[in-house]
Amino acid sequence: MKLYSYFRSSAAYRVRIALNLKNIPHELITVNLLKSEQQGIEYLNRNPQGLLPALETDNGVLAQSMAILEYLEETYPETPLLFGDAWQKAQIRNLCFAIACDIHPVDNLRVLKYLSSELGADDEAKNAWYRHWVEVGFEKLEQLLDSNHDYCIGDKPSLADVCLVPQVFNAYRFNVDMTAYPKIAAIYERCNKLAAFIDAAPQNQPDAA
Amino acid sequence: MKLYSYFRSSAAYRVRIALNLKNIPHELITVNLLKSEQQGIEYLNRNPQGLLPALETDNGVLAQSMAILEYLEETYPETPLLFGDAWQKAQIRNLCFAIACDIHPVDNLRVLKYLSSELGADDEAKNAWYRHWVEVGFEKLEQLLDSNHDYCIGDKPSLADVCLVPQVFNAYRFNVDMTAYPKIAAIYERCNKLAAFIDAAPQNQPDAA
Repeated sequence: MKLYSYFRSSAAYRVRIALNLKNIPHELITVNLLKSEQQGIEYLNRNPQGLLPALETDNGVLAQSMAILEYLEETYPETPLLFGDAWQKAQIRNLCFAIACDIHPVDNLRVLKYLSSELGADDEAKNAWYRHWVEVGFEKLEQLLDSNHDYCIGDKPSLADVCLVPQVFNAYRFNVDMTAYPKIAAIYERCNKLAAFIDAAPQNQPDAA
Repeated sequence: MKLYSYFRSSAAYRVRIALNLKNIPHELITVNLLKSEQQGIEYLNRNPQGLLPALETDNGVLAQSMAILEYLEETYPETPLLFGDAWQKAQIRNLCFAIACDIHPVDNLRVLKYLSSELGADDEAKNAWYRHWVEVGFEKLEQLLDSNHDYCIGDKPSLADVCLVPQVFNAYRFNVDMTAYPKIAAIYERCNKLAAFIDAAPQNQPDAA
């Protein structure tokens, strides 16, 4: 399998972590978002959605990180990242989507670009926007987490941690005060002691700039 | 089960459709987003995320429409809305998230409110924003759909249709020119001939204003 990735793409970062946690052999192909390579004809032929990541499989190319994560879960059930009964899986997905739907899309690069090009937002306004949606989201997430657990749900990483870590990475990058979210910050530190998370981190990618 | 819903909430609309398609008995409890009832203490005690929808089950309250839809799929497997092999399910989820992650969150009411309160966007700028993200998303979606099928994937409704119909409803409301997306428009019309979709439509809700 080939993963189309950009070092700073949160959604690609999620899939990198999951592939590592599941020990799935894959080739990494980098696509430069800043140079808009995802809008180039070569990439669009593979993924018409023109977004990262995309996973090239024997069946074809799959886009949408959350669809990729569910697909990997179904086809590589070893080291499950969605575990427990239906209710526990629902709790894992609840945390995933509180990030993947409620925080990440609003702070996406293409949205920030539109804010400046169409609404005249300067860097300060864009950074405030970024922090606002992270803070609103993290405030809720912090309440949902159980401080008796090492990870988001239970004592091993799940898809919730896979989604959380890239979002926290970006929060630090945009100077969000993470001391306000001690449970989230502790899970982030704990995950980042594991090789699967370390190897997937933006600064450890071949295209890190 | 009790579904907390607001007639115009797209995410609640998705769950209403799925509950109907699966014939799952439930009680509807309305929460007025325009009056910010979702931020009231009574609702926050049930769903600390303070967003709609939420599903009250015997196990507790579940938030996040996409987590709710997956949970209903696991616990009520009759009338499957995620069907086929792992690759087909991935295609269904790909379409779902192209809407639920890439279009809907950016156009959410709370985002539109922030645009006016913090960035001084007027109604015209907000409507242009709304249409922009629908149009960017629908242009990609239209390419992904197969015109030989009656629904998004195959010949029966799936979670992809469950996510698509509320987004198209909103697109019409914001005067998006749907003639540019004939496949999407045809699926919308076809779904809206089914009782499960009709009964879930905003105008047919008890709190329709």
